[in-house]
Amino acid sequence: MITMTKHIEGLVLSELKQIPDDRGAVLHMMRCDSPEFVSFGECYFSEVLPGCVKAWKKHKIHTQNLSVPIGLVRLVVYDDREGSNSKGMIEEFKLGRPNNYFRLQIPPLLWYGFTCVSETAALIANCTDHPHDPTESQVRDIDHPDMGYSWYKAEFVGNK
Amino acid sequence: MITMTKHIEGLVLSELKQIPDDRGAVLHMMRCDSPEFVSFGECYFSEVLPGCVKAWKKHKIHTQNLSVPIGLVRLVVYDDREGSNSKGMIEEFKLGRPNNYFRLQIPPLLWYGFTCVSETAALIANCTDHPHDPTESQVRDIDHPDMGYSWYKAEFVGNK
Repeated sequence: MITMTKHIEGLVLSELKQIPDDRGAVLHMMRCDSPEFVSFGECYFSEVLPGCVKAWKKHKIHTQNLSVPIGLVRLVVYDDREGSNSKGMIEEFKLGRPNNYFRLQIPPLLWYGFTCVSETAALIANCTDHPHDPTESQVRDIDHPDMGYSWYKAEFVGNK
Repeated sequence: MITMTKHIEGLVLSELKQIPDDRGAVLHMMRCDSPEFVSFGECYFSEVLPGCVKAWKKHKIHTQNLSVPIGLVRLVVYDDREGSNSKGMIEEFKLGRPNNYFRLQIPPLLWYGFTCVSETAALIANCTDHPHDPTESQVRDIDHPDMGYSWYKAEFVGNK
């Protein structure tokens, strides 16, 4: 029997609360009692300038918890894990306010990357379960042939 | 003997790393092995629109760890703690990139507030040691007479 999945196994997309305020909104990101929270390793930000791509990266051990409080990002995940029901699948997410203010949890061993699709710079926040360790991740060029993904295509599939 | 302090007791201002990148910088915020880290309660963001003020707030138990990855903020702390060597002191901080990308740790029992002083909205990130609890903080109006501070003055003292 072949099990078909619509989504990449292990990804968790959670809507985050935005508390409106005339002076500027308050935006949730992660709490120690959030369902997906395991441990706190590090919180950092990655700015992405319009049209720029940061890809591809894969973590061996660390789990990423990403949200986009500023700007709009297209984030892409590629699954080449042996034994995964979603092996070979590419999944795209649009992340940003106000309509796509989600937290995306990416478990280890998945490739991911992102590009800024807003007219001004985007800011990605990441609450990882371990502090940064340069020996723990792998990178590939954005046009690596095994990924089968073109970052510079015009169309955008959007959140599925 | 009277002990004079230049700074409000208990505040910790730490310079944060900005890793430049042509596609957008990577910005440190907090690590589990940072000297000031105690525990992870919550990470959230507060947007502040240009010219707007969010003040005053005081936490009874929680410690705030603030940085400003987007825009520029004037953050003000007021000490009315009995027995504090800096009792009665007001301290102002400019927080934002590229020259003032700091993490400010504010212990409980100090009043604080902030205003956006950039032409575009600012984003304040907070990694607190407990998740939000609405019963744990006190608020005062921005023009509360006990604070002795005018948010709408023209001059800015800056980081001391």
